[in-house]
Amino acid sequence: MKSRAAIALEAGKPLELVEIDVEGPKAGEVLVRIVNTAVCHTDAYTLSGADPEGLFPSVLGHEGAGIVEEVGEGVTGLVPGDHVIPLYTAECGKCKFCLSGKTNLCSAVRATQGRGLMPDGTSRFSLDGKMLHHYMGTSTFSEYTVVPEVSLAKVSKEAPLDKICLLGCGVTTGIGAVMNTAKVEPGATVAIFGLGAIGLAAIQGAVMAKASRIIAIDINEDKFDLARKFGATDFVNPSKLSVPVQEAIVDMTDGGVDYSFECIGNVKVMRAALECAHKGWGESIIIGVAGAGEEIATRPFQLVTGRVWKGSAFGGVKGRTELPGYVERYMDGAINLDDFVTHQMPFEKINEAFDLLHEGKSIRTVLSF
Amino acid sequence: MKSRAAIALEAGKPLELVEIDVEGPKAGEVLVRIVNTAVCHTDAYTLSGADPEGLFPSVLGHEGAGIVEEVGEGVTGLVPGDHVIPLYTAECGKCKFCLSGKTNLCSAVRATQGRGLMPDGTSRFSLDGKMLHHYMGTSTFSEYTVVPEVSLAKVSKEAPLDKICLLGCGVTTGIGAVMNTAKVEPGATVAIFGLGAIGLAAIQGAVMAKASRIIAIDINEDKFDLARKFGATDFVNPSKLSVPVQEAIVDMTDGGVDYSFECIGNVKVMRAALECAHKGWGESIIIGVAGAGEEIATRPFQLVTGRVWKGSAFGGVKGRTELPGYVERYMDGAINLDDFVTHQMPFEKINEAFDLLHEGKSIRTVLSF
Repeated sequence: MKSRAAIALEAGKPLELVEIDVEGPKAGEVLVRIVNTAVCHTDAYTLSGADPEGLFPSVLGHEGAGIVEEVGEGVTGLVPGDHVIPLYTAECGKCKFCLSGKTNLCSAVRATQGRGLMPDGTSRFSLDGKMLHHYMGTSTFSEYTVVPEVSLAKVSKEAPLDKICLLGCGVTTGIGAVMNTAKVEPGATVAIFGLGAIGLAAIQGAVMAKASRIIAIDINEDKFDLARKFGATDFVNPSKLSVPVQEAIVDMTDGGVDYSFECIGNVKVMRAALECAHKGWGESIIIGVAGAGEEIATRPFQLVTGRVWKGSAFGGVKGRTELPGYVERYMDGAINLDDFVTHQMPFEKINEAFDLLHEGKSIRTVLSF
Repeated sequence: MKSRAAIALEAGKPLELVEIDVEGPKAGEVLVRIVNTAVCHTDAYTLSGADPEGLFPSVLGHEGAGIVEEVGEGVTGLVPGDHVIPLYTAECGKCKFCLSGKTNLCSAVRATQGRGLMPDGTSRFSLDGKMLHHYMGTSTFSEYTVVPEVSLAKVSKEAPLDKICLLGCGVTTGIGAVMNTAKVEPGATVAIFGLGAIGLAAIQGAVMAKASRIIAIDINEDKFDLARKFGATDFVNPSKLSVPVQEAIVDMTDGGVDYSFECIGNVKVMRAALECAHKGWGESIIIGVAGAGEEIATRPFQLVTGRVWKGSAFGGVKGRTELPGYVERYMDGAINLDDFVTHQMPFEKINEAFDLLHEGKSIRTVLSF
């Protein structure tokens, strides 16, 4: 079938709006009609060419929501008409990782997903007979996309797809990092580095966890208003300090915060986030994705004196099990998604959405097919 | 009073056996007659001059056991005749750290201890009228030493001091890191880097925790026999591998170990230890003390994909609360201390004990006053 899509033909160029060919779902696969997709920094990172694992040409996009159109052989958990959120972190329930009960990093489709292919090693996308790569197992920048059944969370049909598409990445990642990875407890103090969608979602998670103090840190003070709206209590602009930010935070919290979160992808900030955690028990969680080959560093004394350095992918959330609950909490008003949506546009304006992201003017632009 | 002591007059020189002057205990302090002391790498590190915080002249020694001789004003928990193990990590029970329930890093005497002084800012040691610094709040290389009450664990009088002195540092650190910091669970796989006293104690801790597989790693294969005796199940000599040790361990464990422990103080080994931990849940605990200014590094992806980097000081053990139990477990046969004691000597031969340590010929030399 034909599908409207925005494809990444080569690194560093805008996406190209074209009509591509999409093959039907094979065994274990599902054809999804994407209704809404947002644009995330990871899409921009891959498109820039800086990601050494980036593949071209490809169909990017990983923060979307849609409706099941057709299911392949052996698909038992979904039927046409079901509302779904594609997952770049699958949940098969059967692999060593899923069975461990300790992680959400399912290994079921990882190898082929990393090569931009479906689990059988081929692609469902082509343009003029030339194969296009899949991306993160989701490829939401095509109206019709094919996704493994294990990579789809079935959610309530009542929920607006133009909001819950944000649960496909950023918001879930931020909230999940606080709830699942750090397990922030009531009364704890928290520092959030970087006030993009993930940082704001982490603030929201900290409010849900009843943190007593939520310090929001960014060099762009324009972000502080929204951070305050989400529940941040303190605001720090590191570029206006005469001391390193970790020192300032240790001072203002009598020894450091109980939990810190790096939501940028900057290895120097990751170090600051660790070092502003309280001696003896402070935990720092890396959420941001650093550039290829970059390394974090610190003195081991920081860990020997009781700080813990962790990371979180998709907020430690098991998508098929947990995302339906996230959607319910949005419907109940417990999770705020609406305030993340700073812009809405038709899908054809996708390159404008990338521009807004690069300029720091949007939190999330939601596109409609 | 006069006391036999081995003092560190200057960096890089052997200890000097002299008779020093020891003042009686002030308020909150206790005069202890050290009966046995062992020599640990930290003493050697400070004596070498490599420790930028090392102070000279000083009375080193921090792994000892003795008998209370006299108590100062306000000391209520100890009386002359009590058997004690001096603690370089105090436990006051009242500071923010003790009250947190999350750490053993009591802050009660930390500031002055770091400056080689008693809590009132003065020293109890002198030689020919010239002040000598205390060391780690313990200074067990003097027959008579003065220690704050909060830095003394009262233990059973039945226990042989020439064995339980080892609980003052290395053995407790290794066992505690496994039990308290990592909380290794039955069936877990474990890798131990470095088979000195701490590494061997970590092996022992892993056996106590019922780990299913205990991989012992050292470039000195002479250590493997003792590691086997303590319960290690697999042995790796990194210098004989054609691949990095983390890769070898990931291969032999189908993805990595559940817990790894760095018991050396080598920042490169700390990285290897982290990177041989299993994706999704593996935890790596730094126990070794690195050289001044050295840094650990890794790619943040290692943490984002679920590994956890931690550290441990004195095994996370609260000395006054937990050491009496460690002593009981030694008496019951549950903790093996005897096999750590590879050499015994009169105190006067202390410089020989340092030589044996440097040559890798001893695990622990226990000295008797």
